[in-house]
Amino acid sequence: MPHTNVVLSLSCRDQPGIVAAVSKLLFDAGCNVVEAHQFNDAETHLFFMRMRFAMLKPDASIAALEAAFEPVANEFGITWTMRSLSEKQRVMILVSKFDHCLADLLYRWRTGELAMDVAGIIANHPRETYAHLDLDGIPFHYLPVTKPTKMEQEAQVWELIRAANTDLVVLARYMQVLSDGLCAKLAGRCINIHHSFLPGFKGARPYHQAFERGVKLIGATAHYVTPDLDEGPIIEQDVERISHHNCVEDLVRKGREIERRVLARAITWHIDGRVIVNGTKTVVFKD
Amino acid sequence: MPHTNVVLSLSCRDQPGIVAAVSKLLFDAGCNVVEAHQFNDAETHLFFMRMRFAMLKPDASIAALEAAFEPVANEFGITWTMRSLSEKQRVMILVSKFDHCLADLLYRWRTGELAMDVAGIIANHPRETYAHLDLDGIPFHYLPVTKPTKMEQEAQVWELIRAANTDLVVLARYMQVLSDGLCAKLAGRCINIHHSFLPGFKGARPYHQAFERGVKLIGATAHYVTPDLDEGPIIEQDVERISHHNCVEDLVRKGREIERRVLARAITWHIDGRVIVNGTKTVVFKD
Amino acid sequence: MPHTNVVLSLSCRDQPGIVAAVSKLLFDAGCNVVEAHQFNDAETHLFFMRMRFAMLKPDASIAALEAAFEPVANEFGITWTMRSLSEKQRVMILVSKFDHCLADLLYRWRTGELAMDVAGIIANHPRETYAHLDLDGIPFHYLPVTKPTKMEQEAQVWELIRAANTDLVVLARYMQVLSDGLCAKLAGRCINIHHSFLPGFKGARPYHQAFERGVKLIGATAHYVTPDLDEGPIIEQDVERISHHNCVEDLVRKGREIERRVLARAITWHIDGRVIVNGTKTVVFKD
Amino acid sequence: MPHTNVVLSLSCRDQPGIVAAVSKLLFDAGCNVVEAHQFNDAETHLFFMRMRFAMLKPDASIAALEAAFEPVANEFGITWTMRSLSEKQRVMILVSKFDHCLADLLYRWRTGELAMDVAGIIANHPRETYAHLDLDGIPFHYLPVTKPTKMEQEAQVWELIRAANTDLVVLARYMQVLSDGLCAKLAGRCINIHHSFLPGFKGARPYHQAFERGVKLIGATAHYVTPDLDEGPIIEQDVERISHHNCVEDLVRKGREIERRVLARAITWHIDGRVIVNGTKTVVFKD
Repeated sequence: MPHTNVVLSLSCRDQPGIVAAVSKLLFDAGCNVVEAHQFNDAETHLFFMRMRFAMLKPDASIAALEAAFEPVANEFGITWTMRSLSEKQRVMILVSKFDHCLADLLYRWRTGELAMDVAGIIANHPRETYAHLDLDGIPFHYLPVTKPTKMEQEAQVWELIRAANTDLVVLARYMQVLSDGLCAKLAGRCINIHHSFLPGFKGARPYHQAFERGVKLIGATAHYVTPDLDEGPIIEQDVERISHHNCVEDLVRKGREIERRVLARAITWHIDGRVIVNGTKTVVFKD
Repeated sequence: MPHTNVVLSLSCRDQPGIVAAVSKLLFDAGCNVVEAHQFNDAETHLFFMRMRFAMLKPDASIAALEAAFEPVANEFGITWTMRSLSEKQRVMILVSKFDHCLADLLYRWRTGELAMDVAGIIANHPRETYAHLDLDGIPFHYLPVTKPTKMEQEAQVWELIRAANTDLVVLARYMQVLSDGLCAKLAGRCINIHHSFLPGFKGARPYHQAFERGVKLIGATAHYVTPDLDEGPIIEQDVERISHHNCVEDLVRKGREIERRVLARAITWHIDGRVIVNGTKTVVFKD
Repeated sequence: MPHTNVVLSLSCRDQPGIVAAVSKLLFDAGCNVVEAHQFNDAETHLFFMRMRFAMLKPDASIAALEAAFEPVANEFGITWTMRSLSEKQRVMILVSKFDHCLADLLYRWRTGELAMDVAGIIANHPRETYAHLDLDGIPFHYLPVTKPTKMEQEAQVWELIRAANTDLVVLARYMQVLSDGLCAKLAGRCINIHHSFLPGFKGARPYHQAFERGVKLIGATAHYVTPDLDEGPIIEQDVERISHHNCVEDLVRKGREIERRVLARAITWHIDGRVIVNGTKTVVFKD
Repeated sequence: MPHTNVVLSLSCRDQPGIVAAVSKLLFDAGCNVVEAHQFNDAETHLFFMRMRFAMLKPDASIAALEAAFEPVANEFGITWTMRSLSEKQRVMILVSKFDHCLADLLYRWRTGELAMDVAGIIANHPRETYAHLDLDGIPFHYLPVTKPTKMEQEAQVWELIRAANTDLVVLARYMQVLSDGLCAKLAGRCINIHHSFLPGFKGARPYHQAFERGVKLIGATAHYVTPDLDEGPIIEQDVERISHHNCVEDLVRKGREIERRVLARAITWHIDGRVIVNGTKTVVFKD
């Protein structure tokens, strides 16, 4: 069966001829471009491209196309990924006490909206914390963490991520800071949802900070995790209006709404190959 | 001086090889793609593309590039436009009594935000209606209209549009319905701002209709003008929240805010070659 | 234990002295106003008020306060409700095949965000349709409906609503039109979520209609159910941006997001006594 | 002629009986409440109220009503203002090089949307900087400022504010930090528009900061000016979406859109008596 939905995402130093070379190669291989974006960052002189295409030849394989692409990539110094959207990414979800993002991701996954495989759930609270969620068929790992056991627990987390052939790690309100070492291992494939409109209200208890400051909108930020806490490349942000009527608990409640939709968008775009890291920023190809 | 910002916008029946052919041609002509979008409409089987590129060869001309593109366009049956963004489009603004869109467009034009030339203003109210606006250096045409003189006035409107080498006509709350004949002449290059969130509240006095219905959001719609009133391809829409406190006058006031920003976006995207008509809809290439 | 959160919602013909009379009565009864709104509709000459207050006297009862309020209400011709927010409203949820609103309402109910009692779920699809939802402890009624059995099924629906002492009926994407008779019985206490930005795209398959029209934003509308289909008083609406990339399925997916938050807001405001019907419109007291 | 639109805004320590006392006094004086809000801040135990009412007795005067209110205010320790909305506030606008907020405020003032009197414009750039704006009939004061003359210039600014019986000072992108002394003199009646979503990107060049950080939304903040730079009580904030396509100039351009509408809302609410300072925050009575 031919692949109808293959995505090539790439970046390289800007130079003439990239689009021509890539599109010629795809055409020669019998591919038809369905949706594409190209962007040249005038500041960094980096070039970014995402192409989604159908492979029209019945016997075409992604492996063969990758092999054919290799020399082009080398010529232009391209960093790239190629993937059929029908091969779902394996996503490991890390969660702490608050389960609204987890519940939302599972719902979107079951309706087919989030085209991923759930590789497992790692929680630092026991299974019964999520009693109302249907975790049927999903590997659930309870890994409690305390200050003295933090390093050890993180080693177990990494081992589970590795063993499950995880493509993407999602910190769905995990509330634990990952070590620099683990951040490095997961560079570009670990998304965190921070419950504030970064760079406002970094660190702990952002809704309390927002309440104290008297802001009129609160937000949430999905970003790739880096050793610099709350400083990773931002993928998506959104906000909601609050008023003087709202206490901290109201902010937390409204925040749940923002967090879950911001995180879901970030994951959707990531697994669709729409997000490409551009230094401390991201390129997100949408419309 | 080489052209640094040329835009090619095109559409044609979907078929493999378009991107490859176009990008090869641009590369051979010494062009460097700066920003591009491609989109294949799965329903209509039409293909849409916008490419913005720099012409790197010092002696390159757009005329020569157009000539080189001609055979490719013929081969694929492509409808296209190619334009340097430094050659500004000539925009004729038609206005009636309410001048908030006109005032806004002129402000954006003077700050350089709207990269257009104002070919003139045609108003069915006299010059003193706009006493507070600086129309210095802009041809102002007062063409009053009454039921019996409507045909004749429209002929004058058309003559002014024609004589001024107008690229785009903007109905900035003009409040007059154009005849089918004039709509046909201006197909794809006449933008109207309708003061409702279409298809809700078509026709006259939409804010009164919205008030009567008790909606919680009001909107505005920028669309290409077609003989079917309020049915042209939509370019942009936006909304604002209203409440039970708001009377019709408040809706009109809030509406001014929405209308001016929706119209400004639609014009900006049109003159940037980002809008391509797709039957009764539009493709708008943004992010 | 004194009541700390009592809500009085009222409307009557506008006339001087209402606020003074009501607030004097509350003060004499030892109540302290915590949050209040008054609004005089200049068009209909109706007056609306919501007061939330704490009853400070240890032996105060709502029944006694109601008795004391009766003569004031009669004097001014006031329509009113008085309720302690700690006495939760009983909500019956009607659902069809699509369960995103149901899933969302149950999540908000379990976290305590929606301060209601779930009186039961009436579905025209069998229990296994909602296999992934935890309906533990919630009366579930499977009442399939076909054209010939519609009247009979609706009689059963009404009997369940009645028997469960239902305060509010929520059509959480129920997809069945209620008879005029049932609409009348549930006047002002039955909320429907319509999957379009009314009055645009009334009736069936609104997302298909929106797709055909090529709108740039889609919406959802929560309204009280009346015999006039899709014409009931609107409580809340919201929208999301779509683009040419989105097919009908994308609209349906994005619509789920809007529907669930619009419905949740409408229910929250209704059970907080913030929504008062004003003819074919609503007054919603928020900020 | 009786006053049809009088606004009483007040705050005091929370205590039972305030609403009853105030509304009884208004009723006895022949006033009819048209719109009102009351709010009790559970954290600070402060009570806030805004009442808009019509004075129905033909011979009623605001002065007499104020005199009658005085004892009530003293009894409850109320801080208050009472004003007829038909007596317009005198607003002094301070502006620097960028005139988009000034242009917008003047437009809204001329259409009657902003019901204020323009007491004058103080600019640190000469008159010709605003050549395209119609300043006809508005006192224009050119007060250039340099580091050595800052104190002296500010003394002139204050003298102009004082002499013009200014009710409200608006820093419409004035770009100069006021001294602590002037901030104190203007406490609660000087509104600044800051071109970022505070508390993100305080200080200079916020759009450059936002660009560097790679945020996905930018914002603007209208706040009362206090000696603590960018820390004054926030009145209103709003945001717009940006993308990787946008350079700093695009952010500045989009920012103009946000700044002008956020500032206009803040001024409108202030002169309507809807904003009451609550320590380092504000209460804003809207819906």
